[in-house]
Amino acid sequence: MSASKEPGTRLRVADDDDRDVQPLPPLAETFPSSQRVLEGELGVPFREITLSGGEPPLRVYDTTGPENPDPRRGLPPRRAAWIEPRLRAEQTNRTQLHYARAGIVTEEMRFCALRERMSPEFVRDEVAAGRAIIPANVRHPELEPMIIGKKFLVKVNANIGNSAVGSSIEEEVEKLQWAIRWGADTVMDLSTGKDIHRTREWILRNSPVPIGTVPIYQALEKVKGKVEALDIDVFMDTLQEQAEQGVDYFTIHAGVLLRYVPLTARRTTGIVSRGGSIMAKWCLHHHRENFLFTEFERICELMKRYDISFSLGDGLRPGSIADANDEAQFAELRTLGQLTEVAWRHDVQVMIEGPGHVPMHKIKENMDLEDELCHEAPFYTLGPLTTDIAPGYDHITSAIGAAMIGSFGCSMLCYVTPKEHLGLPDKHDVREGVITYKIAAHAADLAKGHPGAQDRDDALSKARFEFRWHDQFNLALDPVRAREFHDQTLPAEPAKTAHFCSMCGPHFCSMKLTADVRALADDEVAAGLADKAQEFRRHGGELYLDAAAVPAASVAPTPRD
Amino acid sequence: MSASKEPGTRLRVADDDDRDVQPLPPLAETFPSSQRVLEGELGVPFREITLSGGEPPLRVYDTTGPENPDPRRGLPPRRAAWIEPRLRAEQTNRTQLHYARAGIVTEEMRFCALRERMSPEFVRDEVAAGRAIIPANVRHPELEPMIIGKKFLVKVNANIGNSAVGSSIEEEVEKLQWAIRWGADTVMDLSTGKDIHRTREWILRNSPVPIGTVPIYQALEKVKGKVEALDIDVFMDTLQEQAEQGVDYFTIHAGVLLRYVPLTARRTTGIVSRGGSIMAKWCLHHHRENFLFTEFERICELMKRYDISFSLGDGLRPGSIADANDEAQFAELRTLGQLTEVAWRHDVQVMIEGPGHVPMHKIKENMDLEDELCHEAPFYTLGPLTTDIAPGYDHITSAIGAAMIGSFGCSMLCYVTPKEHLGLPDKHDVREGVITYKIAAHAADLAKGHPGAQDRDDALSKARFEFRWHDQFNLALDPVRAREFHDQTLPAEPAKTAHFCSMCGPHFCSMKLTADVRALADDEVAAGLADKAQEFRRHGGELYLDAAAVPAASVAPTPRD
Repeated sequence: MSASKEPGTRLRVADDDDRDVQPLPPLAETFPSSQRVLEGELGVPFREITLSGGEPPLRVYDTTGPENPDPRRGLPPRRAAWIEPRLRAEQTNRTQLHYARAGIVTEEMRFCALRERMSPEFVRDEVAAGRAIIPANVRHPELEPMIIGKKFLVKVNANIGNSAVGSSIEEEVEKLQWAIRWGADTVMDLSTGKDIHRTREWILRNSPVPIGTVPIYQALEKVKGKVEALDIDVFMDTLQEQAEQGVDYFTIHAGVLLRYVPLTARRTTGIVSRGGSIMAKWCLHHHRENFLFTEFERICELMKRYDISFSLGDGLRPGSIADANDEAQFAELRTLGQLTEVAWRHDVQVMIEGPGHVPMHKIKENMDLEDELCHEAPFYTLGPLTTDIAPGYDHITSAIGAAMIGSFGCSMLCYVTPKEHLGLPDKHDVREGVITYKIAAHAADLAKGHPGAQDRDDALSKARFEFRWHDQFNLALDPVRAREFHDQTLPAEPAKTAHFCSMCGPHFCSMKLTADVRALADDEVAAGLADKAQEFRRHGGELYLDAAAVPAASVAPTPRD
Repeated sequence: MSASKEPGTRLRVADDDDRDVQPLPPLAETFPSSQRVLEGELGVPFREITLSGGEPPLRVYDTTGPENPDPRRGLPPRRAAWIEPRLRAEQTNRTQLHYARAGIVTEEMRFCALRERMSPEFVRDEVAAGRAIIPANVRHPELEPMIIGKKFLVKVNANIGNSAVGSSIEEEVEKLQWAIRWGADTVMDLSTGKDIHRTREWILRNSPVPIGTVPIYQALEKVKGKVEALDIDVFMDTLQEQAEQGVDYFTIHAGVLLRYVPLTARRTTGIVSRGGSIMAKWCLHHHRENFLFTEFERICELMKRYDISFSLGDGLRPGSIADANDEAQFAELRTLGQLTEVAWRHDVQVMIEGPGHVPMHKIKENMDLEDELCHEAPFYTLGPLTTDIAPGYDHITSAIGAAMIGSFGCSMLCYVTPKEHLGLPDKHDVREGVITYKIAAHAADLAKGHPGAQDRDDALSKARFEFRWHDQFNLALDPVRAREFHDQTLPAEPAKTAHFCSMCGPHFCSMKLTADVRALADDEVAAGLADKAQEFRRHGGELYLDAAAVPAASVAPTPRD
């Protein structure tokens, strides 16, 4: 069987394909006053933002990868030296979980530790416990390893990929580039159209972030779209092919069991996962159990050789508010928990996919159940969308849910673009989706009190208050747009140092007025006030009321404290 | 003193101004297959969306007002007949709170009741308790009354207004029109530039929604921008002028007390409210207590004659994540609670303004404290923004916080546009901001389990599942954009009835596959499955595992349940 093959020789994009894919524009065009810096002996990347006004530079997490002037040649294989000894060792298990359990701190763990400002031992512990994963196929040497887990920064995934109806390889590589430029931590290639294999090859060779796929899509192409013709052999062939290319995680819908399918019959929106509906149809057609479930250990055997992580798919996730948190959804989640244990027995890393469409008050239950049923394996959700009524704005309906579930402990948020439900996203939608999800992830990091997360907020707010406009732009998630919006009303360069903006004009600028207030506070008058304020605080912060200064009617009946 | 004047004769826009302000495009251009319908003897507006596929039409809340072909003439004074008897009665108190406490159900209460699908008695009770307000100046007869309170639909306010740096009357009226077309429940005119009075007149005469202002801005213009020259007399003159024009609620920063100002001195972003910083500067300059606080009852006397509601301003709201929930903010909130009691003693309606910039985990404390300190007077917050790092996307950073605080009981959400912190919003930003906040408000309504709120989600999801594309667009908050996004990849009309879209193409369409699954479920095979599913449910929904179908390794050690 093909799954027994050892990882072979790495493919080169340019070997069979010389199409003209353009490189990303220089980093400084997107992020003025920024440069990529590498820390430590492993060269862990950060983006350093230079500030004015005597402020120290700020280093932020960086996903953009090395500058790559020629996408045909791909990125340098920086992990090759780490991987080589493992390949030579003729092991059948090369997973980070395997090493972590053996007490070994890998280069990948050390890399992630420095990236997250945590200790390598802590990273190893979290991986060993299954609470975090480092998706890192040994066939993806271009990768800059990253970690997904509730005790680390909340991550963002961006979906790209063509369909039968649209898009080319050039466009998909461009979407990959835009996704990582704006901050995507992983990218899923969901192509179902032409040239699936070659598209993926271009993407992998140019990706510094982990790449995920849903292999059943390509398997279905192999049987010419006939769901009933699928079987485990064609599926294993597909896995083998993608494993060799270097895919870092596979979404596998092994939890869609035959007996769960009828539970979806009365739903408002049935089954909305493509993989889920494929497997449901297969199960019903053959009246047999899902082969991804029955042959799950065969899949584990392949994946552990390459260190490909499971992203256990939620094929029965709700596709509407009406269907949220129903029997079908949670029955599948329970099965995913059982499969997690099976995978862990093989030392294969696992994360769990989650919904979907969920109203705000039902979001926490999803996180709590996932923690309980899936033993704290990292949760990876699509949104969730908190209402169905805003097609065209589903990046926003879902950012609300994403921020919430992130704050509850969800480890990775799969972005939703403005085109969701309506069409295939283009690179502008990718940018909009990624930035929106960086917001949700960062809001969640703040809410979790993640160490250092607030540094960037503080630096930006200080710049704002001090009218350092360029610094404010440059510290933003999207400096280009911030500057563009500012310049729509006040385009002249002097406005970038002006102590006001077009919102209020000079007279009504609260920041300017506050500066005046601060200046007054230096006067003796204000010195007296500061004393009063101190006295106020000495009295435990309780209000003291000056009777003369209070409206008469309020004095008597207002309860004092 | 001018505040003792009785409401006089209504102004006409066209009397002194014949500028060419264009009317809104027809409703059906923005909302295809929609028409405005009026219910009951009071003519309560709804927008009825006609659906295909044998589905009943859906009526949704409507803020757009009557069609108005000539903005120079303003809207018809539909409330005039209700108000006239009250004006003739020579009362000094004409507030909805006054009537509610006297057991009188006004036309405004009946109007709001039908609009919200509640009983008039319930509306009266909520108004009488101060838990809800109906902002409705007797000088604003064009108004279609609406109610703000935690037991009603969550409302959205849109800020418009020029500044010294930009915008004309025509642009401001256009922004008003765009705001109500997309669903703003109230509009605040925050103009600080030229023609403040005339801009407001144009806005009021064309507004079916309550208009709020921050009178201190115009008072400051009257003293030529010199903060220290402000006093209660110029302020009362300003109130009188705006009251006569028909302003429905005033933001008044009466809680910025002298002794709180030093509490802001060490903040990252000081005082960010314009009104707050004006009053802080005044207090420090004169070293005297805020005259809005000391003369608060004089203000109440004027407001109760017109039934203008207080929006007690949060002049010390945090302007950055670093400053959230600090001593200055909560000290002021406590004072606003005391002022609420004073206002209520005059039967003046009150809502309380809230922040601002607040990380997710500190949002609930704001709502809880407001409820406690301000005796459940409706809370009206600006966002809050959940991070500072995304200028250009602050409609999104804040929609996350807005949806959350709405779900906790906040009654009205003041929108934030993408231009926040960067520039003056134009009409496109108004649309973006309003739609974003309609999403937040609706997500909160769903989370609160508001009766009927889910009907629109269900109708849209059903349309989506049945490939009724036009219905899906027409049920959306923004049908124009939904259709536009769809058409970017599949512009041809047949695609509007196609059973797939460009995201997945025909082979991978989960909705189509699910239809196949449902068809199969009609077969005898599936009939057997349905039995199995029933059996599954009979066993309390616990999973039964078919040992043969489970991966071997998982059978023994997996805990069963």
